[in-house]
Amino acid sequence: METYISIPEDLKLAVLEKIKPTEAERNELMAVQEELAAEVKAAAEKLRIPDIFVKMVGSAARGTWLSGTHDIDVFISFPEETSREELEVKGMKIAREVAKHAEHAEDRHAEHPYLNITYKGFDVDLVPCFRVPSACQLKSAVDRTPFHNEFVKSRINGREDEVLLMKQFMRGGGVYGSELKTQGFSGYLTELLIIHYGSFEKALKAASSWKPGKKIDIMQHSELKHDEPLVMVDPTDPKRNVAAALSLDKFCMFIDHCREFLKSPGIKFFFPASPMPIEDKEFLEKLESRKSSQLAVVFETPDVVDDVLYPQLYKMEQAVASLASEYDFSVVKTGVWSGKPETVIMLELISGTLPNVKKRIGPPVWVREHAEKFKAKYEGAENVFGGYIEGGKYVFEVQRKYPTAKGLLEEQLVNCSLGKHVHQSVSTGFEVLEDSEICRLKDQDFRVFLRKWV
Amino acid sequence: METYISIPEDLKLAVLEKIKPTEAERNELMAVQEELAAEVKAAAEKLRIPDIFVKMVGSAARGTWLSGTHDIDVFISFPEETSREELEVKGMKIAREVAKHAEHAEDRHAEHPYLNITYKGFDVDLVPCFRVPSACQLKSAVDRTPFHNEFVKSRINGREDEVLLMKQFMRGGGVYGSELKTQGFSGYLTELLIIHYGSFEKALKAASSWKPGKKIDIMQHSELKHDEPLVMVDPTDPKRNVAAALSLDKFCMFIDHCREFLKSPGIKFFFPASPMPIEDKEFLEKLESRKSSQLAVVFETPDVVDDVLYPQLYKMEQAVASLASEYDFSVVKTGVWSGKPETVIMLELISGTLPNVKKRIGPPVWVREHAEKFKAKYEGAENVFGGYIEGGKYVFEVQRKYPTAKGLLEEQLVNCSLGKHVHQSVSTGFEVLEDSEICRLKDQDFRVFLRKWV
Repeated sequence: METYISIPEDLKLAVLEKIKPTEAERNELMAVQEELAAEVKAAAEKLRIPDIFVKMVGSAARGTWLSGTHDIDVFISFPEETSREELEVKGMKIAREVAKHAEHAEDRHAEHPYLNITYKGFDVDLVPCFRVPSACQLKSAVDRTPFHNEFVKSRINGREDEVLLMKQFMRGGGVYGSELKTQGFSGYLTELLIIHYGSFEKALKAASSWKPGKKIDIMQHSELKHDEPLVMVDPTDPKRNVAAALSLDKFCMFIDHCREFLKSPGIKFFFPASPMPIEDKEFLEKLESRKSSQLAVVFETPDVVDDVLYPQLYKMEQAVASLASEYDFSVVKTGVWSGKPETVIMLELISGTLPNVKKRIGPPVWVREHAEKFKAKYEGAENVFGGYIEGGKYVFEVQRKYPTAKGLLEEQLVNCSLGKHVHQSVSTGFEVLEDSEICRLKDQDFRVFLRKWV
Repeated sequence: METYISIPEDLKLAVLEKIKPTEAERNELMAVQEELAAEVKAAAEKLRIPDIFVKMVGSAARGTWLSGTHDIDVFISFPEETSREELEVKGMKIAREVAKHAEHAEDRHAEHPYLNITYKGFDVDLVPCFRVPSACQLKSAVDRTPFHNEFVKSRINGREDEVLLMKQFMRGGGVYGSELKTQGFSGYLTELLIIHYGSFEKALKAASSWKPGKKIDIMQHSELKHDEPLVMVDPTDPKRNVAAALSLDKFCMFIDHCREFLKSPGIKFFFPASPMPIEDKEFLEKLESRKSSQLAVVFETPDVVDDVLYPQLYKMEQAVASLASEYDFSVVKTGVWSGKPETVIMLELISGTLPNVKKRIGPPVWVREHAEKFKAKYEGAENVFGGYIEGGKYVFEVQRKYPTAKGLLEEQLVNCSLGKHVHQSVSTGFEVLEDSEICRLKDQDFRVFLRKWV
């Protein structure tokens, strides 16, 4: 392993000053958590629902939340023998009773329904769950969370700051967040990395030499093979990989971020400068200097949550690239941006136009039946430029069906394999913008994306 | 095997009428051959060179020459024990003595020197050779020829017309001639095909179903493996493949020509209409309808014989295609045309221009040493557009060195692996013409080539 200079203490302090909750913040959070616990118990009593426990879980409960975030997770736990239906009905009843004192409430749905409320400025999830004896015997995915909470709380004591540094460092590297949009590191995964390696600095040094297939098993209780880039065996459930959502590219971006930081530690790795939205003029200059073809497929953003939307957008990104390649366009790169009201799939090509002529290579002349059929199909047919033998095979030069990528997308996009909601939206209409036409899109967040793109 | 209608007798007669030497032609050829034999003997006597035999070989001697061709091969055979040097000196002395009565004489060189003369309008080769007991014991490649002559003469009797039909049919299909320019069928190979299959029609029917690796061994005296598309074991030398010079494409073109002819026999398969030279206007229209990029590399034709020139031109054709591909240009096809004073290598590309940006894909991020070197090389370097991680690998978008194929060829062509004479010529200067600039080339034979090209 390489030797690095240590991370300067004053750098860590400077970062912590920005991200560590103040005493006042901490007290306020504690007070709100206690209030919420009392509200849940009162609601249960009022509704005559017995045998309910309230658990505060998540980073707020573990002292590992970043200043400025206002998330509280309240788990309402029912006896294990409760039926699913009863859990959902009674759980939501209690939640709705609590929500009477909230500024805002919204039904949400993971494996079970739960309620998201805004309460005294905090973003609170009220989640019904089963009280199971261990994380291996769970009845619902959320039942794991209280066990994660216990494990982290029992081990993290005194290293909360290391977790905070790591979370902010991952944010700075664009790899924090395990939702399907980001495919990065979850808060729990971050905590486990600190528990395993002991400190922020040790974790970074180790990660600099990670390779795909890296396995960490704190409890040494798993022999299972996984094929994800990083395997962090859940200390509360040997069958589960906590890092299952982490993509190869985010895994590599984190490694790269660690190496660069350790080479010359600096605050910018935690708080990178946010790029300015690109202006038309600058974008047009970039187009001129790159001389490739830029295409933007634009359609109305489907009204679904990110975890449903992004997998469909990534699928569409792949489908668009495959379609272009299939019709001989050389893809440089693809990208996804989604906002309101529009979503954009970006496609950079070596060229958006191809010659009219396309070479069709047939079977070898001596594979007689196939070769003769091939020849009969093309010889003298309309839109065939000519034929010859090359490398022992019949070759015909035929008219290309789609000489422009724009034309191809306009005609064939709806026939691609697309996710349900994206397909619905695209079916109602979409637009393909080419090069300078992309200036039509004024959304400032898109323009930030576009600056990084070109 | 498929069943075909037979080839109509009147078609064969119509072809033979055009290609079979008349009685008068035949008599003239006989007379000239006898004269030449007498001249050689007289020369040898005059020069006091004893023990010389004269042999008439080649198609003229076998009665299988096409009307209008005027080739005579005179072999001057020396005793086997003659030294190489003596053979060359004495053989050429005799030849030069004979040449005193010729209209024109020119030294040529195969394995040995020989003399090419024009004598009473005939194109005559005077070739010194050794008198060896069998073709397997030859001292020089030309020593085989008299054995070929004997073999064919002893078997072809009565089937000379079949050979004539086959030769003309191969000419019509563009596959006749075993010189390195054509890489097709030699006269001897054609004769052996008729001897083996029995007739023109039978040979065509059989050839329609040939596959590469087809082996014909008339004397059944070879177990050798060859990897040429067609193996015709030399009846006079089991180690030799008479069809060694035949390329895969000419082999396939012949198969195709046979099939098409047998489907609907017609005189055009023997005498195809010769295409007209393409005019500027028509060429420009073709460019417009194809929309690909045409490049012509033009240089002075090296002053060497075709058998030396063409292998170098084909090598250059390959080198030019490889160079273009190496720098990301997509090659549609390549071609060679050579005349006096200029030679042209044609190159059709999907596009002659590429964007300025080029994607450089590095090693996976986790192959640390290589990955870090790669990143250090490109990050922040001049002419680098930007970098990111894709598929676990560092990717940098860099400035392309040659965004035009014309610029690439102009700068890099001389660094390609080229044959000696072509390299010399290209080093003194060459020109790359693009699209409409190709109209600069007015040679009518090139314009015929160009018509087939587009």
